[in-house]
Order: sequence, then structure tokens, then C-alpha cells
Amino acid sequence: MRAHNLALVLHTAANSTYPPSRAAVAAATGLTRATVSALVDDLVAGGLLVEVDPPPRTGAGRPAAGLALTSAGPAGLGLEINVDYLAACVVDLTGAVRHRQVEHADQRPVEQAQALATLGRLAAAARLAAEADGLIVAGATLAVPGLVADGLVRVAPNLGWQDVDAAAALLAVPELADLPITVDNEANLAALGELRASFSPGDGARHSFLYVSGEIGIGAGLVIDGELYRGVRGWSGEIGHVTVYPDGRPCRCGARGCLEQYAGQEALARDEQLAAAALGIALSAVVNLLDVPVIVLGGAYAPIFGTLREGIEAELRRRVLTAGLAPVALRPAALGPDAAMRGAADTIIQAVRDDPAAWLRRFT
Amino acid sequence: MRAHNLALVLHTAANSTYPPSRAAVAAATGLTRATVSALVDDLVAGGLLVEVDPPPRTGAGRPAAGLALTSAGPAGLGLEINVDYLAACVVDLTGAVRHRQVEHADQRPVEQAQALATLGRLAAAARLAAEADGLIVAGATLAVPGLVADGLVRVAPNLGWQDVDAAAALLAVPELADLPITVDNEANLAALGELRASFSPGDGARHSFLYVSGEIGIGAGLVIDGELYRGVRGWSGEIGHVTVYPDGRPCRCGARGCLEQYAGQEALARDEQLAAAALGIALSAVVNLLDVPVIVLGGAYAPIFGTLREGIEAELRRRVLTAGLAPVALRPAALGPDAAMRGAADTIIQAVRDDPAAWLRRFT
Repeated sequence: MRAHNLALVLHTAANSTYPPSRAAVAAATGLTRATVSALVDDLVAGGLLVEVDPPPRTGAGRPAAGLALTSAGPAGLGLEINVDYLAACVVDLTGAVRHRQVEHADQRPVEQAQALATLGRLAAAARLAAEADGLIVAGATLAVPGLVADGLVRVAPNLGWQDVDAAAALLAVPELADLPITVDNEANLAALGELRASFSPGDGARHSFLYVSGEIGIGAGLVIDGELYRGVRGWSGEIGHVTVYPDGRPCRCGARGCLEQYAGQEALARDEQLAAAALGIALSAVVNLLDVPVIVLGGAYAPIFGTLREGIEAELRRRVLTAGLAPVALRPAALGPDAAMRGAADTIIQAVRDDPAAWLRRFT
Repeated sequence: MRAHNLALVLHTAANSTYPPSRAAVAAATGLTRATVSALVDDLVAGGLLVEVDPPPRTGAGRPAAGLALTSAGPAGLGLEINVDYLAACVVDLTGAVRHRQVEHADQRPVEQAQALATLGRLAAAARLAAEADGLIVAGATLAVPGLVADGLVRVAPNLGWQDVDAAAALLAVPELADLPITVDNEANLAALGELRASFSPGDGARHSFLYVSGEIGIGAGLVIDGELYRGVRGWSGEIGHVTVYPDGRPCRCGARGCLEQYAGQEALARDEQLAAAALGIALSAVVNLLDVPVIVLGGAYAPIFGTLREGIEAELRRRVLTAGLAPVALRPAALGPDAAMRGAADTIIQAVRDDPAAWLRRFT
């Protein structure tokens, strides 16, 4: 009950447009003022809430202090390994990015142990920078362009990885050895990042969209009514391997005509209009199958959205059975290429926000 | 509370392998014997449960009567209009088919009012036959091969229908005028029929599968964890219009290369192996996108499953990224071509089972 109420108070403070007083939190939650005050004291002592200057005086009496999430408490470390870059970022409890580093380099010729060691150094540097800034890194999530099951990267075709324990490799770095580290698919994390970035907390629950992440490979994250749909075994969203031309170009996965070979970043650089048409064909399949009203184009697609839009929409109009009844909305991702590592960091922050009691126990 | 408990008692009786005694129902539900007895009396009086001969004596004392769903009470009328047949069936509360009639005739040259009038006669005859048999038809559900919204058939490309109020046409038949009639997509209803036919009630909740309905057109119903996924606007499952050959055969929908043109019933009759390959390409897209572990082939595909299987599986092995990690199970539908009308009738029966209190109110 206390754990539930701590989360309730923290969410109320987090989702208010103006830092609310203890009395306002009590009114919003239905808890008594005494209960709210005791919970707020714990959240302030535990470094999750801060009391800020009161809002401008609007009535009689002394204005009360407002409650806000702290920008000096727990933080999430978001990591990403992708085919042509490594990246790390730190996001604080308020959702602000406090540290961000991206190293561009083709990872395909790099040994997997080497790539993970470089990522480990990037992660360690990010953690040290965050802690020098007064933050406490609560955990790390790593975004990978591949299939993840039971914490292992089962297959990442464009990295040439198979059954890699990436978390174990990162935990071998002394500066990271005490961190909880999880691994997840980059498109799934990017979809979560986009959900948080584009929709207010209450509003997000009503939204359904497909997030398409255009990198060397192409992944997708499907959000239905504000929830990520992961598939029965966690392997949904492999839109890069949807067939667009059955007898077409050979793909690294062994098949022919995969979307990735026409709209992956390298194909895209050669022919944007072919990429747009191929994307339009694959996205039409998604809409015909799933009746998804919104498609968000992320990764490398976001900055050239204007170039791709018309070609994609032409295919959607032609191939989606319901196009005449209700058009599909197409839009660029709000976070651009940072979406996956932002979503990764955000999972850590959300875990603290959803269960502040667990965080407080770390200090008692 | 009483409504909830009535449903609980009815479900317990329905889902027991052997008709349970009142005492056994009390033990299974945690309700008192007095409460169970009062509820059972109401369910017996309302014609939903019957008391049957006691099970063989296993201990001391007089054996108690067992409780079973009645086969003489409410029944569901399942109707289907498809491109080459009209059909009606009546299913009783136990799930048994009590009446079934299928009229094969190409509906494409038939005026829509004429087709609905013929279906109305079929439905009226089914109702009369059921009532002569002591059943009470509780409602009807019509399966259509098209997109349904707000009770209207918005588009049924293979029938040439647009914005048709099929329920109103049926209600104009005097023998049906007092029935609640709903309209739904045939593949969705067939998927529900298959779910009920293939899985025990408790087990079904854990099952996820794609049901593919092969008729003149092709539809699909996606069941995730025992629930039908309908899409944001109810228009999911249009697998017949997933592109398999982008510059291929023109489709009635206006696009080119739709699955329907290669694996619909007419194309299937010309070339089964081309149909299997095209199905394999489209189903690979579904598995790559949604990570669905089981595909059920229904309608015209069920009786020739053996012929199609190898061709489909070859494409799945080639094109599904996770094929090497976990194979996709392919199987024929248990209900065959009757799945949609059985699923349609079943929605009526399920509604009575889920809310017996509403049914009992009809008689008080």
C-alpha cells in the first residue's frame, strides 16, 4: 500500500503542469494531507522529489512550496550498438538528457568483443560524467539491432552476431560491474522513446502507431493503445525482412527481396525513390494486416521524411484496402536517430518512477 | 454480484468434464452451498441448466444430480454470406450444431437485395426448424467477407458491396424481425470459431494464432493470448490485399499483386503451387511482423492442406528471420469451411453464457 501510494504521489508531481503543493497532491490523489506529507518527506529524503519555490501568490495565505522531480537524483544510462555507430546517453528523472555521446564507425569489420569493449568505455565515461554531475545511475539498457531472448542477443544479422551475452560483456567493465543491465531490441526501445516524447502520459494510452527505425537494417516497434506489442516470443517488428520483391536482391538473412535491401540506409543512399516505394509496399502490408492508423518514421528516415513521404503515401493509397475510408497518418519521429538510446535510458527512469519504494530501499 | 455469480456457476457447470453436483460447484467457486443452490434453481428455471442423472456412486451416501448446460434452451443463429455460397446454422448452448444449411451459388451476379432476401429465407427456415426442435433463438450474427464498421458493411470488394445495412435487410423478414442481429467480418468470426473448437476454455487464453480464411477472397483473424485482435478501427486481417508481387496481377481492389490474385479460390484452382508460394510469402510477412507461432489454414485451404503445406513451409523457412530459432506451426482448421458461421452462432451462445442474468430477465 505504501509502495503504491509513493508511486501515486510521485506520478502526480511528475505529471502536473506546475509543481503542485502537498495540499494539491492530496486533493488530486484522494489521500489525506498527513499521509501525503509523510510520503513526500520520504520521497524528498530519498532524492526523488525536491521542494521548489512556490508558484505566484493567487489567494490569501502564505503560498506553499511546490513539488517537482529532482534533476539531481537517479538517472538512466541508455546505450546503443548499431551497425554504424555506438552511442550512450544519460537521462535524469525529469526526462532531460544530461550526457550524450555518439561514435560513428562501421561495426561490421569489428570483432564483437572489441565492439562491446568500446561500448563499455563509452558507457563508463557516461556514468562517470553523470556522477560528477551529482546523478546516481540506476541502471543501463542496451539497444541492439537484433532479436533478443532471455537477455541474449540471439541474432543480429547486420552485425553478424549470434547468441551474444552483451550484458555480461558490459558488466566486465569495472565501472559498470554493479549496474543492472538489460538488453532489448532497438526498434522496440525507439518506439517506447517516441511514445514518451510525443504523447503526454494520459494521452499516450490511447495511441496506436507503428514506429519504423531506418538504419543499415530496418526494425519496427508496434504500439497498440499505448503498449508495446512484443510478439509471443519477443520477436515482432522484423519489418526489414518483409518481402517486397520475392525474386529480388539477396539479403544477409538468406532470403531474397527483403525490404532492407531496398530501404536500408545503404540502399536509401543509392535511390531514395526506390526506398520510398519499397517502404510503401511493406507498410501497406502492415496497415492491411493490423489496421494501424499512424506510422512514425525514425532513424535515418526522420531527417529525409519530406523526400520519402510522397512515394510512401502513393503506395499506401494504392495498396491499403481501407485507404479510401480512413487515411493513414505518416510522420517523422520526434527524437530522430537518438530514439533508441533515449528509449533505453527511459526504461530505467520509468522503473524508478513506477516503483519509487524499491529505489528508497537502496538507501535504508 | 448476483449476475456475476450466475455466470460463475454456469461457467463451472459448462467447463466441467463431468456434470458437477451443486456441492461440487460450491467447492469449485468458493460460494456457499445455499447460494449455489439458489443460483442453480434460477438457472434451471430459466432453461439454461438441467439436472442430469448422478454420476456412478463412488462413496457413501446418495449420489447427487449433476448439472449440465441444456440442449433445449437458447440457441445462436449463425449466418454467412460469401462470394459463392449462403449459409445458416443453429448452435445450442452446449455448442452442438442443431441445424445447418449451405446454398452454393455465385453471389457476384446477384443483386445485393436479392442475395440478402435469399439469406433471409435461409435464416427464417433455420429459426423455424430450431424452434420446432424446442430451442429459443437468442440472436443472429452474420459473417460477411468485407470491412464492417458501426454495423454497416463498408466494403466487400468481392461482392461489389459498399455501405450495405445487411442487418436491416434481415430484420425486414417477418420471421426475424424480433431478433438482435449483428454483422461481423467472416475471418474474425472464423478465428473465434476455431479458438472455441480447438482449445479448451482454460487453455485457449494462452493461445496465439493467425487464422487464414481462403475463399474467393482471403481474410485473416489474429488471436493473441486467446483474444481476437480487431485493429484500431476493426479493419485488421486484410491479408488478401497484402502485396506479394508488386507489379503483378490487377486486383478487384485497384492494387496490383495482392495475395488474393494468387491464392484466392479461383487462382488456387488454376495453380496450387503458385498459391502455396504466394501464401508463404504473405505469411512470412505476418510472422516477421508479429511473431505469431501458429498459423491455421481455413476455408478452402483446410481440405487441401496437405497439398499446400510444403510450398508454404518452404517460403516460411526462407523468409522468416526467426525460422531457425523457432519454427512456425502450420495446421488445417478444425471446422473447415463452416468456421465462420459456427463462430457467428457461437458469439450469441457466448453472450448468453457470459451474462445469464440478462437472459433470465427476458422471462421475468
